[in-house]
Amino acid sequence: MKIELTRRYSFAASHRLAHPRFTEEENRRLYGKCANPYGHGHNYVLEVTVAGPVDATTGMVANLADLDGFVQREVLDVFDHVYLNEQIEAFRPESGGQVPTTENLCIEIFRRLQPFPFARLCRVRLEETGRNSFEYAGQASRRP
Amino acid sequence: MKIELTRRYSFAASHRLAHPRFTEEENRRLYGKCANPYGHGHNYVLEVTVAGPVDATTGMVANLADLDGFVQREVLDVFDHVYLNEQIEAFRPESGGQVPTTENLCIEIFRRLQPFPFARLCRVRLEETGRNSFEYAGQASRRP
Amino acid sequence: MKIELTRRYSFAASHRLAHPRFTEEENRRLYGKCANPYGHGHNYVLEVTVAGPVDATTGMVANLADLDGFVQREVLDVFDHVYLNEQIEAFRPESGGQVPTTENLCIEIFRRLQPFPFARLCRVRLEETGRNSFEYAGQASRRP
Amino acid sequence: MKIELTRRYSFAASHRLAHPRFTEEENRRLYGKCANPYGHGHNYVLEVTVAGPVDATTGMVANLADLDGFVQREVLDVFDHVYLNEQIEAFRPESGGQVPTTENLCIEIFRRLQPFPFARLCRVRLEETGRNSFEYAGQASRRP
Amino acid sequence: MKIELTRRYSFAASHRLAHPRFTEEENRRLYGKCANPYGHGHNYVLEVTVAGPVDATTGMVANLADLDGFVQREVLDVFDHVYLNEQIEAFRPESGGQVPTTENLCIEIFRRLQPFPFARLCRVRLEETGRNSFEYAGQASRRP
Amino acid sequence: MKIELTRRYSFAASHRLAHPRFTEEENRRLYGKCANPYGHGHNYVLEVTVAGPVDATTGMVANLADLDGFVQREVLDVFDHVYLNEQIEAFRPESGGQVPTTENLCIEIFRRLQPFPFARLCRVRLEETGRNSFEYAGQASRRP
Repeated sequence: MKIELTRRYSFAASHRLAHPRFTEEENRRLYGKCANPYGHGHNYVLEVTVAGPVDATTGMVANLADLDGFVQREVLDVFDHVYLNEQIEAFRPESGGQVPTTENLCIEIFRRLQPFPFARLCRVRLEETGRNSFEYAGQASRRP
Repeated sequence: MKIELTRRYSFAASHRLAHPRFTEEENRRLYGKCANPYGHGHNYVLEVTVAGPVDATTGMVANLADLDGFVQREVLDVFDHVYLNEQIEAFRPESGGQVPTTENLCIEIFRRLQPFPFARLCRVRLEETGRNSFEYAGQASRRP
Repeated sequence: MKIELTRRYSFAASHRLAHPRFTEEENRRLYGKCANPYGHGHNYVLEVTVAGPVDATTGMVANLADLDGFVQREVLDVFDHVYLNEQIEAFRPESGGQVPTTENLCIEIFRRLQPFPFARLCRVRLEETGRNSFEYAGQASRRP
Repeated sequence: MKIELTRRYSFAASHRLAHPRFTEEENRRLYGKCANPYGHGHNYVLEVTVAGPVDATTGMVANLADLDGFVQREVLDVFDHVYLNEQIEAFRPESGGQVPTTENLCIEIFRRLQPFPFARLCRVRLEETGRNSFEYAGQASRRP
Repeated sequence: MKIELTRRYSFAASHRLAHPRFTEEENRRLYGKCANPYGHGHNYVLEVTVAGPVDATTGMVANLADLDGFVQREVLDVFDHVYLNEQIEAFRPESGGQVPTTENLCIEIFRRLQPFPFARLCRVRLEETGRNSFEYAGQASRRP
Repeated sequence: MKIELTRRYSFAASHRLAHPRFTEEENRRLYGKCANPYGHGHNYVLEVTVAGPVDATTGMVANLADLDGFVQREVLDVFDHVYLNEQIEAFRPESGGQVPTTENLCIEIFRRLQPFPFARLCRVRLEETGRNSFEYAGQASRRP
């Protein structure tokens, strides 16, 4: 009786897409208006999917209160209302961080949520706008 | 040319989360405000996914009229505008029923829809609120 | 520079539509399946609109933290995860309460929010399902 | 670090469901009001999912500008604001075309998008209305 | 205690925007791709708002069953799954009908719903796509 | 036959809420996490409503192509993918600009759209997140 639970969260952040090794001109060509040096922002919508057997007594795959607390601490407290390029170590150019594309943000969030102790993390889906989203299911998904 | 068809339905029901073996206090700790003895309710959104080859003549995987009639009879007529803990045998404590969590409701709905004769039932997704949903794909999904 | 601020909340509750003076049969004719004696429930979506001038210094019509706190205390703590017909005085048949239609619930919520001290309450919109909603703007709206 | 990118597009078209070998009566029985000889239309919502490794430098799975240009040219310029049964060769009865069900339209769109050069096309999801959608992942999905 | 009730319906239809007095070229310049001679279609979303006092006994402004029946008969049975330019008298060029823009369709629907006997029709809102909608409140709205 | 047309646009921007006369501490108390010195961002959804009579020949209140071009030039080209506090004169602290709350942004957008020549601008609605929106109808709305 394995079942998947998907829970929806949201946070607001700003970022700028630009690689430190590229010129302003190259970044503009690669990232378009996302390379604007002053940055811009989004309301990110995050969907977290965990899976496991349904507990025969409680009837739950995981307690939503446990999942909410974990996501709040590991993701929302970290990423909500920040400028990703400056305030998140993994995305600081000075620290050799990666470009904060939604792809990289999605993978970083997966990495932070994987230790969730009460059910197996299946995948993380991150909407940057209502028109595009990214989904990451961990490295296992490469193996089949 | 196997294709999946997903159809969206909705129904409104009420439930109370509490296990008959637990004290009021234990249920409150486990289920939070969902353990309120008087119950509460939701607009459930149900997505049913069936799959199969596309018929070379009709161009359809299944006739929506057939699917709608089946879901109406097997699910909506049963679960719409009821109190799950009293009116659904599978969830009545007196009958040894399970706690009507959305996990258990999702599995029960899958069980009722699996005999759909015109295409293979792939999975059932049930939203309890706009923020959480559950997906069940049957026991086969356990095997691989 | 008068502006309107609309904020969206949600709560889950159950109710039963039936008038104590009517027979079971009459209630069923009047309210359809909403008259089911065991009740049923909804995810209510509440939109609260307040209006006022924009403060020249802060740039705000009202502080969202103030509005959220007020709505939480006056509405969500009261109506979330309850059975309206039993747990809300205004809707208890034993207390001569009204039938908990979404119309009456909407008016009751307006009454509770009207004293909001930091901006004028304009109207309350309450969705019962994704297909129907009710809007109440107070008695002033009767006067043209 | 394989990741999926899903992008949402929309177009408006009209169609009529009827098989040239069937009588008016048979088509009406099979397709219901979709068999209306004058046709009718929909706002189709298209979700295109591509997958691949995240480029270590750019942090992207594919450049949205490349994907948008490809989908515009191969799909939107072709299907937006047309009558499928007359203006799309694959659906013209006179050319032995197929009935333009959303199933067949979904497969046709997949076929047109599969050559996308910058990431592997995973699947195409096509909503005909807010209540039904179709998903096609190519023939590979038949094999396992 | 005047309250507004808004109910949401949908129907699918096709149309073509072109004025019979204009040349193909002029219509194309005026209506863009909406002038395509073969037509195209939409999923129209219709929101009907009626208002009145809340009945002290039933707690309702109008019975949804009455409203649904009226809208079904006067609007959905007429406009769902049709080609507006051919099958609706008010929009047939041969009958001197108007161009079936969403503006004109919205006004036509208002005209058909105005006689609703159980509450006053306030306004009709018609979405042509998720990005544009039209709202008509009758001629009274001209008078201030 | 006066009718309203509402059109939906979106843009992404970042901002920081802080008044230059207040201390860091005071700004944090007033604006909460929105006062984060590095800024954060949103996907703003903009709804523009214009009204007027329906042209008896074209059947339109305004040509969507005209409205889209005007909004693109006056609003989207200006506010999309920028940091409001630095790149928009009206919000630069150095220029004595206002705090870029959504209230002030909404009023600024109204001011820019008011000269639309083909129909009267009625109001502008601006969503900052899915949970809050602001609506401004110009100063006329103050006069009753």
